[in-house]
Amino acid sequence: VPSLDYPPPIQRLILQLKSLPGLGPRSAERLALWLMQHGDDRTEPLARSLLDLGTLVEACGQCGFFIEKGAACLLCDNEKRNARLICVVEQAADVLRLERSGAYRGMYHVLGGKLSPLDNVTPEDLSIASLVTRVQHTGSEEVILALGSDVEGEATAGYIAEALRPTGVPVSRLAQGMPAGGALDHVDELTLFQALQGRLKMQ
Amino acid sequence: VPSLDYPPPIQRLILQLKSLPGLGPRSAERLALWLMQHGDDRTEPLARSLLDLGTLVEACGQCGFFIEKGAACLLCDNEKRNARLICVVEQAADVLRLERSGAYRGMYHVLGGKLSPLDNVTPEDLSIASLVTRVQHTGSEEVILALGSDVEGEATAGYIAEALRPTGVPVSRLAQGMPAGGALDHVDELTLFQALQGRLKMQ
Repeated sequence: VPSLDYPPPIQRLILQLKSLPGLGPRSAERLALWLMQHGDDRTEPLARSLLDLGTLVEACGQCGFFIEKGAACLLCDNEKRNARLICVVEQAADVLRLERSGAYRGMYHVLGGKLSPLDNVTPEDLSIASLVTRVQHTGSEEVILALGSDVEGEATAGYIAEALRPTGVPVSRLAQGMPAGGALDHVDELTLFQALQGRLKMQ
Repeated sequence: VPSLDYPPPIQRLILQLKSLPGLGPRSAERLALWLMQHGDDRTEPLARSLLDLGTLVEACGQCGFFIEKGAACLLCDNEKRNARLICVVEQAADVLRLERSGAYRGMYHVLGGKLSPLDNVTPEDLSIASLVTRVQHTGSEEVILALGSDVEGEATAGYIAEALRPTGVPVSRLAQGMPAGGALDHVDELTLFQALQGRLKMQ
């Protein structure tokens, strides 16, 4: 006798949810049953939002922050921002965190991660080559590396500083106001503000 | 100047995710960006699974467990199970937990919750009236109340026992093998097995 299980459509949803970051098997099951019980009023808007991501959103070809497809980038196409200042961050969410600190009015460059040999993330997986090209063509006055102060963040900062050395453009990194081992996720806006204000010259 | 935010499609997804049980604003944002970065390969199957719930799955009209639309109920239509034994549970997930314990081969009745005045859950919100009717028409030999041993579970068990008294059918509840204050979510299969074996007669 095969043991009883949920109907296949519910099993498939649990499988999908379980594979998302931060959701274990129990949370996935609880979530799937909650969605089942709440019906189309909840599942349809969520499904629609998921499908909209692929059709309506893309990454800006220059800075890597998210834009609506076909729309101008609110960061790159803003003439009030200093186009000769480039702030390098690991991920798009970091852009919002820096914007909310109010300490920065230049451009951004989203790397898409940080160097991590253990996870097979090499320089080719990050937008480092395009950063070097961008700095060369922009006549940048400074590149600020706003990366986490964990081991991978420090290693990534060192690698990028080295890659930018031939351009002669000054490279700085966030001040040591950041807590040791902390990612940008985990600091408040004041800490970020202080870290930006007290940034240190690297070369 | 309005402060920078994600494009509206990403904001809408974050809003949808944030409203799910167990997902806070930070997890919702992280999940939305993860989905955005992984693209259609991840969002489309998840969206499809969500839409399938409403079109492919329904609750069995008798026991309340989930079935594929139009299909027979694997529990109610199984002639090898004892149709005169009814086990009452709070939610569909509890059916699977009891099945996995291997201690039970009767029928089920999913209440759809437990009595909770604070959350405005009254007897009319649960399938208690249909349980009484079902017991009357089936000629049941016993009704087992497999509810959590928290305050609401105990109150619900007491209310159902009272409602079934006129039928004259014996009503039992799970043995005190369950940890105090625990819901069926939180006990292992062995504890459930022992609790079923040692169930106590209520009237």
